[in-house]
Amino acid sequence: MSFTLHPRLAADTVFVADWTLSRVLLTNDARYPWLILVPRVADASELFDLARQERATLIEETSRAARGLKDLAAAAKINIGALGNLVPQLHVHVVARRDGDAAWPGPVWGHGAAVPYEPGARDAVLDKIRAGL
Amino acid sequence: MSFTLHPRLAADTVFVADWTLSRVLLTNDARYPWLILVPRVADASELFDLARQERATLIEETSRAARGLKDLAAAAKINIGALGNLVPQLHVHVVARRDGDAAWPGPVWGHGAAVPYEPGARDAVLDKIRAGL
Repeated sequence: MSFTLHPRLAADTVFVADWTLSRVLLTNDARYPWLILVPRVADASELFDLARQERATLIEETSRAARGLKDLAAAAKINIGALGNLVPQLHVHVVARRDGDAAWPGPVWGHGAAVPYEPGARDAVLDKIRAGL
Repeated sequence: MSFTLHPRLAADTVFVADWTLSRVLLTNDARYPWLILVPRVADASELFDLARQERATLIEETSRAARGLKDLAAAAKINIGALGNLVPQLHVHVVARRDGDAAWPGPVWGHGAAVPYEPGARDAVLDKIRAGL
């Protein structure tokens, strides 16, 4: 089996880059700077479905995304989550949080409907993220 | 600076074990089998505050907790999160989720008040977790 991005992740995000292990996506929600890392491994749902070396790479890539996003967004805190209750394909959320954002201090997941980027704003964010990560 | 557990984490959990890197805690909330791993590293808040080797250990310990909890709880999905909006000390939630649990399919964080274990039930859960992780 080869890796295929889950259709819901494909629908809710735009492509940023392919890193060594993970496909990096930007969630199409202008409320928060929000990346999703999806290991390009078929049929992985839980962390323990990965090989040990893949896990080591995943946490390095997660840390890289977190550091880049924190600097770019001047965030108070980075939130990291791997839930998968709705989309079983293993994916790691990396979200820049600010005091006063739409869900602060609660979690972003399940908090209201996404506010899609205007196309121009989205492209500007993508450029900034591709340059800064 | 030496490691000290944040008082809110201390208040909301009971001690399970000290692993190589992390203190393992059971959240005192009978609604979900819910562990928290706290790297015993002073002043760590974000993943990138850890050394690379510490991150590799953290994801192995997280995976170990996830696998153990999934088996013990016959969970549909393990949810993993490192938020820190309220408690800045780096800590990783590992939560066993079941279809129909109190927050399903949403996140557990911020979802209503904790339901503390009865002391006897808590000790039974602790015994099971200590034996099964």
